[in-house]
Amino acid sequence: MTDLVTFGETMALFAARRTGPLRFARDFDLGLGGAESNVAIGVARLGHSATWVGRVGADEFGDLIRATLLGEGVNTEAIADPGAPTGLMIKGRRTADLIDVSYYRGGSAGSRLAPADLDPALIRGARVLHLSAITPALSASAREAARHAVAEARAAGVLVSLDVNYRRALWSPEEAGTWLRDTIGDVDVLFATVPEARLVADGGVPAEPVALAEALAALGPRHVLIKSGAEGAMELSDGVVRHAEPYEVTEVDPVGAGDAFAAGWLADWLAGATPGQRLRTACAAGAFAVTSQGDWESLPRRGDLSLLRRGADGVSR
Amino acid sequence: MTDLVTFGETMALFAARRTGPLRFARDFDLGLGGAESNVAIGVARLGHSATWVGRVGADEFGDLIRATLLGEGVNTEAIADPGAPTGLMIKGRRTADLIDVSYYRGGSAGSRLAPADLDPALIRGARVLHLSAITPALSASAREAARHAVAEARAAGVLVSLDVNYRRALWSPEEAGTWLRDTIGDVDVLFATVPEARLVADGGVPAEPVALAEALAALGPRHVLIKSGAEGAMELSDGVVRHAEPYEVTEVDPVGAGDAFAAGWLADWLAGATPGQRLRTACAAGAFAVTSQGDWESLPRRGDLSLLRRGADGVSR
Amino acid sequence: MTDLVTFGETMALFAARRTGPLRFARDFDLGLGGAESNVAIGVARLGHSATWVGRVGADEFGDLIRATLLGEGVNTEAIADPGAPTGLMIKGRRTADLIDVSYYRGGSAGSRLAPADLDPALIRGARVLHLSAITPALSASAREAARHAVAEARAAGVLVSLDVNYRRALWSPEEAGTWLRDTIGDVDVLFATVPEARLVADGGVPAEPVALAEALAALGPRHVLIKSGAEGAMELSDGVVRHAEPYEVTEVDPVGAGDAFAAGWLADWLAGATPGQRLRTACAAGAFAVTSQGDWESLPRRGDLSLLRRGADGVSR
Amino acid sequence: MTDLVTFGETMALFAARRTGPLRFARDFDLGLGGAESNVAIGVARLGHSATWVGRVGADEFGDLIRATLLGEGVNTEAIADPGAPTGLMIKGRRTADLIDVSYYRGGSAGSRLAPADLDPALIRGARVLHLSAITPALSASAREAARHAVAEARAAGVLVSLDVNYRRALWSPEEAGTWLRDTIGDVDVLFATVPEARLVADGGVPAEPVALAEALAALGPRHVLIKSGAEGAMELSDGVVRHAEPYEVTEVDPVGAGDAFAAGWLADWLAGATPGQRLRTACAAGAFAVTSQGDWESLPRRGDLSLLRRGADGVSR
Amino acid sequence: MTDLVTFGETMALFAARRTGPLRFARDFDLGLGGAESNVAIGVARLGHSATWVGRVGADEFGDLIRATLLGEGVNTEAIADPGAPTGLMIKGRRTADLIDVSYYRGGSAGSRLAPADLDPALIRGARVLHLSAITPALSASAREAARHAVAEARAAGVLVSLDVNYRRALWSPEEAGTWLRDTIGDVDVLFATVPEARLVADGGVPAEPVALAEALAALGPRHVLIKSGAEGAMELSDGVVRHAEPYEVTEVDPVGAGDAFAAGWLADWLAGATPGQRLRTACAAGAFAVTSQGDWESLPRRGDLSLLRRGADGVSR
Amino acid sequence: MTDLVTFGETMALFAARRTGPLRFARDFDLGLGGAESNVAIGVARLGHSATWVGRVGADEFGDLIRATLLGEGVNTEAIADPGAPTGLMIKGRRTADLIDVSYYRGGSAGSRLAPADLDPALIRGARVLHLSAITPALSASAREAARHAVAEARAAGVLVSLDVNYRRALWSPEEAGTWLRDTIGDVDVLFATVPEARLVADGGVPAEPVALAEALAALGPRHVLIKSGAEGAMELSDGVVRHAEPYEVTEVDPVGAGDAFAAGWLADWLAGATPGQRLRTACAAGAFAVTSQGDWESLPRRGDLSLLRRGADGVSR
Repeated sequence: MTDLVTFGETMALFAARRTGPLRFARDFDLGLGGAESNVAIGVARLGHSATWVGRVGADEFGDLIRATLLGEGVNTEAIADPGAPTGLMIKGRRTADLIDVSYYRGGSAGSRLAPADLDPALIRGARVLHLSAITPALSASAREAARHAVAEARAAGVLVSLDVNYRRALWSPEEAGTWLRDTIGDVDVLFATVPEARLVADGGVPAEPVALAEALAALGPRHVLIKSGAEGAMELSDGVVRHAEPYEVTEVDPVGAGDAFAAGWLADWLAGATPGQRLRTACAAGAFAVTSQGDWESLPRRGDLSLLRRGADGVSR
Repeated sequence: MTDLVTFGETMALFAARRTGPLRFARDFDLGLGGAESNVAIGVARLGHSATWVGRVGADEFGDLIRATLLGEGVNTEAIADPGAPTGLMIKGRRTADLIDVSYYRGGSAGSRLAPADLDPALIRGARVLHLSAITPALSASAREAARHAVAEARAAGVLVSLDVNYRRALWSPEEAGTWLRDTIGDVDVLFATVPEARLVADGGVPAEPVALAEALAALGPRHVLIKSGAEGAMELSDGVVRHAEPYEVTEVDPVGAGDAFAAGWLADWLAGATPGQRLRTACAAGAFAVTSQGDWESLPRRGDLSLLRRGADGVSR
Repeated sequence: MTDLVTFGETMALFAARRTGPLRFARDFDLGLGGAESNVAIGVARLGHSATWVGRVGADEFGDLIRATLLGEGVNTEAIADPGAPTGLMIKGRRTADLIDVSYYRGGSAGSRLAPADLDPALIRGARVLHLSAITPALSASAREAARHAVAEARAAGVLVSLDVNYRRALWSPEEAGTWLRDTIGDVDVLFATVPEARLVADGGVPAEPVALAEALAALGPRHVLIKSGAEGAMELSDGVVRHAEPYEVTEVDPVGAGDAFAAGWLADWLAGATPGQRLRTACAAGAFAVTSQGDWESLPRRGDLSLLRRGADGVSR
Repeated sequence: MTDLVTFGETMALFAARRTGPLRFARDFDLGLGGAESNVAIGVARLGHSATWVGRVGADEFGDLIRATLLGEGVNTEAIADPGAPTGLMIKGRRTADLIDVSYYRGGSAGSRLAPADLDPALIRGARVLHLSAITPALSASAREAARHAVAEARAAGVLVSLDVNYRRALWSPEEAGTWLRDTIGDVDVLFATVPEARLVADGGVPAEPVALAEALAALGPRHVLIKSGAEGAMELSDGVVRHAEPYEVTEVDPVGAGDAFAAGWLADWLAGATPGQRLRTACAAGAFAVTSQGDWESLPRRGDLSLLRRGADGVSR
Repeated sequence: MTDLVTFGETMALFAARRTGPLRFARDFDLGLGGAESNVAIGVARLGHSATWVGRVGADEFGDLIRATLLGEGVNTEAIADPGAPTGLMIKGRRTADLIDVSYYRGGSAGSRLAPADLDPALIRGARVLHLSAITPALSASAREAARHAVAEARAAGVLVSLDVNYRRALWSPEEAGTWLRDTIGDVDVLFATVPEARLVADGGVPAEPVALAEALAALGPRHVLIKSGAEGAMELSDGVVRHAEPYEVTEVDPVGAGDAFAAGWLADWLAGATPGQRLRTACAAGAFAVTSQGDWESLPRRGDLSLLRRGADGVSR
Repeated sequence: MTDLVTFGETMALFAARRTGPLRFARDFDLGLGGAESNVAIGVARLGHSATWVGRVGADEFGDLIRATLLGEGVNTEAIADPGAPTGLMIKGRRTADLIDVSYYRGGSAGSRLAPADLDPALIRGARVLHLSAITPALSASAREAARHAVAEARAAGVLVSLDVNYRRALWSPEEAGTWLRDTIGDVDVLFATVPEARLVADGGVPAEPVALAEALAALGPRHVLIKSGAEGAMELSDGVVRHAEPYEVTEVDPVGAGDAFAAGWLADWLAGATPGQRLRTACAAGAFAVTSQGDWESLPRRGDLSLLRRGADGVSR
C-alpha cells in the first residue's frame, strides 16, 4: 500500500556547470530527472509513501535511476528493458536567467512503457494517482498506459492528479490539447501554468488565471491550480477561488519548481490539511525548490519550509 | 612585541562548492577558519602586527593552519598537540542565502588550550588582547585560559576586546549569558549582534541597538559595538552614540563579516583613527568581506576598501 | 528474511583528488565508507540479500549513508541518533602507492551502537552474520552489541563471519589480540592478513600463511582465510589448504579490497559454490575492487568478474 | 573579399573560477581574448564575413587562438612569430562586481605586428576596417601598422571604425589622447565610454554624453557612439542624436560588452539597417554579452537577441 | 582540391573523468569524436589537406563539431540537418585498462547521411577517399552514400582506403562480414585488427596476421594492414610482408589509436614515403595517440613523433 | 642567522590538469615554483633554517609567493618590485612521461635581482650559500648578484653550492658553459646531470658519470654530484667515488627531483652526516619528490623518507 502512485519516464541528466552556450560548457555533472519521479521524491520528503513505475535501460544510467530513487525512499519499479537505452536530458544555462533543456529520448526504454507495466492492484491500493501529460506524448504504448492507469484509478475512487507539463519537443499544442480535453473529464486535480491552461481552454477564454481555472473546472476537475511562477498561484476548488502570494527567494535553478508545487499540494491533501494551508504548502515547496541546484535535489522536507525566512547573518551553526 | 594578541581554536574547513543539501554537494574545497585567527589576519592586512596562539593536531590539518597563518603574516604559535586531532568545520550552502556550518571539534586539539599556552609576557607586551566567547565554550581548560589571559591583560593595561560570537552548537544561551556577565566587567571593547547583546542584557531591555548598547556599557565596556548586518552598525563609546550606514554590496559569502568588522575597528584603534573613521572602517571591512568567497580570504587590505565603489564597466585593467 | 546480516559504523568520507600531502589536496569528493556496509553492498551485488544495521547522526551525512545503502539494494537500518554526529573519514593519497586514512569518529553516532539496536529475530532469520573487529574497538556498548550478535547467531546456528580489519587508530595490538582470542571460539569464518593473524596467534607461530591459518583454525574457525594482497590468498577449510593465485590488475585504489574478498567468499558460500570456486571468487572480487576508484563503488557484480581479462584495444563498444 | 577586416593582439587567457583575491583562486580555465578578434567573432555570428589579422607565438597558445577563431568562422591570419611568445591575460573576479585583468604582453608576438602583416588588397576589398586604440599602444611597429591600415582604408573609401578601448596598463591618458586626436580625423565611426571620450575632447567639454559626442564629431567621425553601460547608450550620426534604453539583464561577466556593442552596430551597418535599429542591435548585443561567461563565448547570434526577454519559468525545452 | 576526403558520423562525446562504473562518474567533459573525422584531423596534422563531410544536428553539438573541425584545419562540410539531433557518445573508464563506449545515435543527423551529400567533384578531385565500415551500419542512406563514394573514387582512380572499425552495437558480425566482402574488391588499402580481419576472411584461415592479410589481399586490396595493438603491426603490400615493432609508451587513453594509425599511413602515402617508413609512421602515430587524453586531441604532428623517446628527466623547458 | 641562504627567481605557476597538448588542457591549478626556493623549502622540511631572497612583482602573484614560502617556514625576503610583474611558468603534461614547461619571465621582477638585494651580512652569517645557474642567465644585474654572493660567501668561508639546472630557453649551451667555467673555481659543491656536466667539461671527456665528475672536480669543487635520474647518482668527494642505487618508486611528477636531491644532500651536510648517508638521503629525497604532484609540495620531511617502502595493502590508518 502506498499513498501515491506515479509513472513516467525518468532520464539520465547531464547538467552544464557554466553559464553560456552549451558548446562552451565543457564540464557536466551526471544526475537524473523526470517530472513524475520528482513528484514522488517530493511527496516522500514531505512524509507520505510514494511509488514510481517506469522503464529504464539495462545500463548504467538505468541503475543510477533505480539506486537514486530507492535512496530517496521512493518505492521504485524501474523495469530494466534490455531492448532500449535509458533516455537522456542535457541541461544547459544559456544565460543567468534561462535554462535550456534538450532530450535524447526517442525510442528510449522510458518511452516503451506499456499498460502491463502498471499493476492494477498497485493503483487501486493507492490514495492518489499522479501523472503528467508528458507520458502520453512519448509513444502509443505509453499513452495507452496512461489511459489504463486513469481508468483503474477512476474505477477505484483513487484521486487522479494531472500536471500538464507541456513539452513542445514531444508534440504540438494541438495534439496536446486534444489529449488533454479527452482526459480532463477523468481528472480530479489539474496543475497548469497560464499557457498550459490555454492549450485546453476554449480560445475565447481570457488569458487570465481565474477565467482559465473556471473554464477548466467546467470540464471536470474539482481542483484546478494555476501557477504563475514568481507572481504566485491560484486555486479553484469546489467553486472557491484562493490566491497565494509568492515567496521572495533568490533563484538558483528554476527547474523542478512545478513538480515541487504539485508534490506540496498532494502531500497536504494526503495529510488532510485545509485548502488554504495546502495552497500555501504548494507555493512554499515550489519556492524552496528554486533556491538550490538540481531538478529534485532541492525538494523540501517539512522542516525546510521554514528556511524560506533567513536568519540574521544567513549563517546557521 | 606585537600590536594584537588573540587566541582560540582554528579548524580545517571543508567548504561545499554547490548550493543545496550537503549530501548532494559532492565537491569540497579544503581550507581553514577560526574567528580569532580571522581577526588576526584582518588586523595584519590592515597594517598592524598580530599574534595568534592556539593548539592544533600533530597532523596535516595542523600544518595547514600553521602554514596559512604564517603566510598571512600572522605571528603564529600553533602548538602541535600529539594527543588530539585538529578540529573540523563543514560549510555548506543550503540555499543561495543560507550558509550551514557544522563542527567536528569535540575533544579536538584546539579545545585543549590551557592557561600555560598563553605566555604572560606576550600578552603584557601587546596593545590589544582580543578574544571571542567561543573559547570559554570549548572546555574547562580553554575557559580558564581565557580567564587567565583577560586577567593578565587587565593587569598590564592592555585593551581587552571581546566578540560574543555566540555558537549554539557549543553551549546554551543561559551558559553563555552567565559567562558573559561574569566577564564583561573586564572588557574594554565589546562586539555583538542584537541577539547576542540580549544574551547579556537584562530581559527588560528593549531589543533595539541603542538601548542594548547602553545596558551593556553600564556593565563595564567603554566601547560597545552593535552590528545589524545589512542594516549597518552602531557604536556607543564614552557615552556617545554613532550610527554607520551599511555599504551596498553584492554578497557572495557572509561568513567572516563579523570578524572583519572587529578587525577593522581594532586596526583603526591601533592606528589612532577618530571614532567616526574607526566605525566607518569597521563597516567597510565587514562589507568587503562578504563580496568574495572564504571566511578570511576575503578580508580587505587598506587599499581594497576603496573597491567598494565599482568603476564604469566593473573591469579593472 | 535476509541472507546476510552485518552491523558496524559507516562514515562520511572526504576523499582527496590529488596525490600528495593532504594539506595541499585542495579538492575533495564527498562519499561514504565502512567495512561492514562495504561487505553488505558486495554481497548484494553478487546476488544475495544483505542487511546492514548501524547508527548515524540525525544529519546530512547520516542521510547520505542511508540513501546510498538503500540505493545499493542493501536492507538498511541506519538508526538516526540525535545525540551524536555521523563519523568522518578523510582519505588522502600520500604517494601513488600509499593511501592515508584518518578518522573523526570519537563519540560518533556509529560508536554508540548498542545491543538493543540489533533485533534478535533479524539475526536468527539470516544465514550469515558478518562482523569486523572494528566494532568492538568503538565503545563499550558497541563491543557489547558485537558480543550479543555473535551469541544470537551461535544460538541459532547462523554462520558467524569475522574480518579482523585491525585499526591501530582505535586500539592497541594487545587489546585487539585479547578481544580476538576471546571471540574466535565462536567464529566460523575468519578473514585476516598475515599481520592480523599474528595479533591472535601465539608469538611462536611462524609469520607464514599456512602456519598461521592452522594456529587460528585450532582456536575454532572452520574456515580461515589469509590474504596476502598482490601475492594471492590461501584458505584452510576443514583441514584442507587451498592457494589462490593473484589476478594481475592495474591498481587504482587499494581501499576496499579486503571487504570485496570477504563479500566474494560469503556470496559464494551462500550460493553453495565449491570451496575452490569460492576462493577464486573471493580473489577475483578483491582484485576487481582495486581497479577503480572508491571504497565500495568498485565492488563487482557477477558479470564484472570476467572483465579482469581485457580485450584487444581495451575499448568496449 | 570580406565584409570586415580587423587586426590587433589576441592573447591566451587564464580565467579564475572563484571570486576573491587572485592568489586564492586556485582553479583557472584556459581560453583566449582580444578586443578586435572579439569584434570579428561578433560580426561573424551576426551574419557577415570577418577577417582578423595578428601575430601569435609559434606555440600552443598561438595554435589555440588560430583554431578557435577559425572554428568561429572568422577568416584568420594568425601569423606564427617564432621570435616571441603569445601574450597572456589573467582574469580574476575580485568581488562579485569587479573583474580584474592583468597582462603578460610585453615583447609578445602580438605586439610585433607590423605594417607588412596587413595586406593592402585585403583592406581595400573590405567594407569596414575596425581597429582599437589598444594596437597603437603595443609597440612602434604596431602603431605604424595601425596608421598604415587606416590610410589604406581611407584611400579606398572603406569605412574606418575605431573603438577607444583605453588600457591604462599600456599607456598614459596623455599618450592615448595625443594618438587619438591625431587619428580621429580619419575615423568614420568612433566607439567610446564617457571617460574615454574625455581623453580626446577638450577639457572644457562637460562630462556628459551628448556634449562629448558633439565635440568628438566635430573632429571628424560621422558616427559617434557613447556607451554608458547599464545606463544605455547614445549615438550622434549626421548631426542626429539617438538614445537607447539599456536592456535589463542579470550580469554574469561584464567583459566583452563593448566589443559586442561595436559588433552589433557594425553588423547592422553592413546589413543596411536603419540608424535606430542599428543602435538597438548594438545595445542588445552588448547586453546579451554580459549574460553568460567568457569574453567572446557570450556574443550573440541574431536569434539570441530575442532571448533577452525570458519566458514563463525561464526554462526552454 | 584536397588530398584526402572522408565522410561519416561525428558525435558529441561526454567523457567521464574518473575510473569506475559510469553511474558513479559524476563529472564529465564535453568533446566530440568520430572515426573518420579523427583520421581527417590526423592527416591534417601530418601536413596534408583533408576534407570531412557529414550531417550534424542544427544544435549546439553540431556547432561544436563544425567549429572544432574547422579549428583543426579540416575542410568541413558539417551539414546542419534540422530534422534530427547530433548523435552522442558516452565514454567511461570501467577500470584503469578498460574504456567503455556507448552511443545515442539511433535516428541521429549523422545517420541520415545520403549520397547527395557527397559531391562527386570533391571525391574525384582528391587523392585518397577514406571511409570506415561504421558508415554502412548507420542506415540505408548512409550505406548507399558509402557505395556511391567508393564508386566515384574508383571511377576517378582515387585511392580507396577502408578501416573496418567493427562496432557490435551497430550490426552483427554476419551483417558486417557480408558488407565487407561485397566492398573489399573496390578497396585499395584495408586497415583491420585480427578479429576484424576474421569477419571478412574465410573461417578456415588461421587467426594469425600474415595468413589473414594474405586472405584479404586475395580479395582485392593492394595494401592490407593488420594491427595488433601493443604487439605492433604488419603490412602486406604488393606481396611483400613487413612487420613493425611496437613503441613502448605509457598508455593514457587507448581510444583513437586505430584512427591515428590510418592517418599516419595515409599521410605518408600522400607524402610519397617508402613502404617501410610509411609503416613506421603509422605505428608511431598510433603509439603517440595513446599517450594522452582524448580521441583526437592526442593525434601527433610530425614533430611530435620524436617525443616518443623521452629525455633525461622527462621535463622539457 | 640561517643555515642556508639562497636566491633566485620564483614564479607563479599554472599547471595543466590533464595530459595532452597544452591547448586542450582547459583546467589549470595556480601555484608557484623556482629551483632555489624549492631547495630552501626542502632544507627547511629536513630540519634546517633556510632563507630565500628574490624579487617579485607588487601583485597578487608576488603575494602568493611570499605567503607560501613564509608558510613553509622559509625566511623570505620577497622584495616587491613595483616596476615589473612576477614571472610565470606554464606547466603541461605532453604525455604521461613528458612534462612541458614554458616561461613568461622576460623583464620580470625576478630577473631584476641586483647585488644590493643580497645583504652581505646575511650571506656571511650562513653556513651554506646555494645558487643555480638559472640566475646568471636572467639578466646582467642578476648575473652580477650571483657573482657578488659567491664572492661574499667565499670570503667568509661559507660553503658554496651550485646546481647547474641548465635552461635552454634562457641561454645557449655555449653561454652557459662559459659562465660555469668562470665560476666553478669558487664552488664547493656542484650538482649536475650528465648532459649538464658536459656543458662544463672539455669535449674530450667521456660522457660517463665518473669521468665527468673527475673532470669537474679538477676545476675546483670538493664535492661533485652527478645525477642519472632513475639510474641513481654518484658522488666524487675528496677523491672518493660513491654510487647510490636508485629507489624504485611510481613516478607522479618528475619536476623538482633535482631540487630535492640538492636539498637532501645539503641538509645532511648541515647535519654532519657521513658521506654515504648524505648521498643516500639525497637520492631518497629526489625519489620521494616524484611520488606526488607539485614542484615543491612533494618535498619530503625526515619522516617521509621511510614511506618509500610501502606497507601491506598500501593503506595507512
